[in-house]
Amino acid sequence: MLTGKNLIAGAPVDSAGGRFAAGGAIAEFEEATAGHIDLALEAAERAWNDYRHVGAAQRAAFLERVAEQIEGAGDLLDVAHAETSLPPQRLAGERARTTGQLRLFATLVREGSWVDARIDRAQPDRTPQPKPDIRRMLMPIGPVAVFGASNFPLAFSVAGGDTASALAAGCPVVVKAHPAHPGTSELTARAVIDAATAVGMPPGVFSLVQSTRNEVAIALVQHRHTKAVGFTGSLRAGRALFDAAARRPEPIPVYAEMGSVNPVVLLPGALAERADAIADGLAASVTLGVGQFCTNPGVVIGVASDAFDRFVRRLDATIREAPAGTMLYPALLDSYEAGLRRLGAVAGTTTVRSSAAGEGPCARPALTDTTADTFLRHRELAEEVFGPSTVVVRCGSSDELHTVARSLEGQLTATIHGTAADLVDHARLVAILEEKAGRLIVNGFPTGVEVCPSMQHGGPYPATTDSRSTSVGTAAIHRFARPVAYQNFPQSALPPELQDPNPRGLWRLVDGAMTKDAL
Amino acid sequence: MLTGKNLIAGAPVDSAGGRFAAGGAIAEFEEATAGHIDLALEAAERAWNDYRHVGAAQRAAFLERVAEQIEGAGDLLDVAHAETSLPPQRLAGERARTTGQLRLFATLVREGSWVDARIDRAQPDRTPQPKPDIRRMLMPIGPVAVFGASNFPLAFSVAGGDTASALAAGCPVVVKAHPAHPGTSELTARAVIDAATAVGMPPGVFSLVQSTRNEVAIALVQHRHTKAVGFTGSLRAGRALFDAAARRPEPIPVYAEMGSVNPVVLLPGALAERADAIADGLAASVTLGVGQFCTNPGVVIGVASDAFDRFVRRLDATIREAPAGTMLYPALLDSYEAGLRRLGAVAGTTTVRSSAAGEGPCARPALTDTTADTFLRHRELAEEVFGPSTVVVRCGSSDELHTVARSLEGQLTATIHGTAADLVDHARLVAILEEKAGRLIVNGFPTGVEVCPSMQHGGPYPATTDSRSTSVGTAAIHRFARPVAYQNFPQSALPPELQDPNPRGLWRLVDGAMTKDAL
Repeated sequence: MLTGKNLIAGAPVDSAGGRFAAGGAIAEFEEATAGHIDLALEAAERAWNDYRHVGAAQRAAFLERVAEQIEGAGDLLDVAHAETSLPPQRLAGERARTTGQLRLFATLVREGSWVDARIDRAQPDRTPQPKPDIRRMLMPIGPVAVFGASNFPLAFSVAGGDTASALAAGCPVVVKAHPAHPGTSELTARAVIDAATAVGMPPGVFSLVQSTRNEVAIALVQHRHTKAVGFTGSLRAGRALFDAAARRPEPIPVYAEMGSVNPVVLLPGALAERADAIADGLAASVTLGVGQFCTNPGVVIGVASDAFDRFVRRLDATIREAPAGTMLYPALLDSYEAGLRRLGAVAGTTTVRSSAAGEGPCARPALTDTTADTFLRHRELAEEVFGPSTVVVRCGSSDELHTVARSLEGQLTATIHGTAADLVDHARLVAILEEKAGRLIVNGFPTGVEVCPSMQHGGPYPATTDSRSTSVGTAAIHRFARPVAYQNFPQSALPPELQDPNPRGLWRLVDGAMTKDAL
Repeated sequence: MLTGKNLIAGAPVDSAGGRFAAGGAIAEFEEATAGHIDLALEAAERAWNDYRHVGAAQRAAFLERVAEQIEGAGDLLDVAHAETSLPPQRLAGERARTTGQLRLFATLVREGSWVDARIDRAQPDRTPQPKPDIRRMLMPIGPVAVFGASNFPLAFSVAGGDTASALAAGCPVVVKAHPAHPGTSELTARAVIDAATAVGMPPGVFSLVQSTRNEVAIALVQHRHTKAVGFTGSLRAGRALFDAAARRPEPIPVYAEMGSVNPVVLLPGALAERADAIADGLAASVTLGVGQFCTNPGVVIGVASDAFDRFVRRLDATIREAPAGTMLYPALLDSYEAGLRRLGAVAGTTTVRSSAAGEGPCARPALTDTTADTFLRHRELAEEVFGPSTVVVRCGSSDELHTVARSLEGQLTATIHGTAADLVDHARLVAILEEKAGRLIVNGFPTGVEVCPSMQHGGPYPATTDSRSTSVGTAAIHRFARPVAYQNFPQSALPPELQDPNPRGLWRLVDGAMTKDAL
């Protein structure tokens, strides 16, 4: 059923580079070499010249066909379950998210206004100089390298948000599969390839490489035809890719989404009203999916009070009884345990663990309790422990709470539980958190990332390497585009998006005013 | 008249770091130290917390006041003339460009839709999960370091496009003056400071540091409070700043605009119709401002023909008689002469120079003639020679012309002279140049960069370090902003831009549709 081969420009390609097997693997997979990277990028470069001129309707049809092929890949969820231990229901939901994203980008591309068309018409009689006719729109940036994430084998992997947004922008994609789910990756890649064939896209528009080796990842980032990189994973790996891209003769953007501790701040009014409910919601968010989300809430901050004590007691009790769960692959569990030892080694912390025992090597949820003073003196308490762990930070005053908030590094999200009056009283806190995070949540939990135009899944470093971008939602397409201006072009030589009659019916900024009108 | 001091958070600050004098200097200037950088950035960080909350109307008033103060600085143009040798009329025009830019950004900020507000309303009854209310807009990125350019002492320096767009976005600015015009920089900085005082901005919103030292530039880029960098200058210096930013613990974006050879391609129909006129226009563009523009046309490409010969003869004759001109500072002339020696050293090139003699150390325009074959084998012929120099490349066929176009690195601009029929016949050429440049021009010349919403002054590396950005025109504001999403926020805690009644009257993307309506 699985070829175990690298799939380059639509076809399996043999490798003499050795093989690897994933933990739950049902096959062995051939290691890609630098030669495969070169083949894939040369094909991507050739494909780009055609693919970027493919009309919006065809590009949208391609994305929709990818969604259909994924839905038709009958064994996909079984293989994903075997490789990741994620429950079937979760995987079914993730598949729906994946196909939903593909269809959302199809809709975006078909509508077309994302290209940010701007037209300033000529003023031949202007003095001292005449004004030329200038028109500007976004065009695709070129071949994109995408790195699959371990924790979302579908929605952030081979045909996930990075791939969908890059293909939507008009960029060919070369994916490096995450080696924890190579079979899932191959099946998804075959769905993309089948879709490309069915709707007549150039074969180089998509390739999949399989590798466990750092040097192959670096070769992919440093290939001269690679023009941008999408990545979701650890800070260490993301920074290594960023550094490799910065060392290129021609530097390229790296969109690495590297996780976060996603602080949750509890304000007095909310605690007085619903300390128990917040504790229950937080425990559910911390343990959801064995804590394997980049939006997992890893730090909880509040001012000591009876209500805060009540909250912590309830959270403590819930965590002690929370079920254990199998992590995506064994090394993640090792890393989780090492993280908890790191937290426990700090004087002034106490950690409780769930007493649940799971089958085999399971992660038991954990709650670490500390004070603001200790937290501020020990940076490691603010570092992500990937898994079902959270750290409660007890502050002595609102001022100390603000100091803790200010001490945080960049985050994907920051959450506040507060009444309307709390938010007024703590406007300064909101301002601090705006500077720290890409998304602020009131009276909710950070897990659950809606896919929509207003989503911002990104944030200041080290949450990502590019706080100006999002990896979820329609705005993600802008990562893979750059503007081109056309000065004094005859109508016949302009792209349709910029022609006077506005044949695509786009929103355009014409002489400074937004309009869908023809000129 | 001039203090010669670093101006930090509104006040002159002494330095024990030594002094320097510029070539045409009328005073000595104190060298900033790492301590001054720290003072300026600490003040900027403090100011940011206030400045980013300053309302749009006040921010616009600040920018307009800066323009007025610059217009009121009576000795500014005299000092600029003494320091740069640029003619008074050119400097008057540049001042008008500078104040025009400030007012354009004031208008942009007052209108406000640049923040790209997006609202997706809650759907509490959606299954399987309810949809939360999410709203997203751009916020300023933080303190910005701006490096003044030598070739535009006003429009790309202390209160130039980088500063105007950063202040407009809500970011404090620390400018490092170009040491070729420190007096002009001080006078402009005082205009900004007076404006900030007059309209009640926090003093740390703007600082000026003066330095001739690389380590001070690096300290400015690497200061922990610096969140973005704007630069216009050489590839060597721009790359050094980019590399310094990439090495930071927290990497930051560097918008370095580093110039370009701005290829001009001549197609047969246009040559047949107007070879002489193109030659005259090109000579004027090459020699304009002693060739000291980043859009100076440094390479001209065409297929050999009688008409192309006629064009070259006319260009040759015009260049031979073109006047010499004083460059901005002596080292630039040395570098220009070294560049011409580099071109002349390639076997298969011939170079002619203007016979004009100027007063003192003047640059004489130059024309280098070569073949596509030689050009393709000698990369140095495609490297920028800053000054009034251009290289004519004779191709044997349209295919060879395409090969030459494909061989080019990233460019700010690419120009085509062609009839409508030429453009149809050479659609592939347009496609090649789209991938190389930020702005494509038909039947014009690249010098002259319009300041408007549709301008794209940027391009693939090495033209810039970030092809997704422009340093001219209103879109330049996006360099200094990042998105923040607000989930489930009560109306009273939302920024006005995202509140239901749309009090700012912005264009917003609401539930996927553009509208100015209130919700």
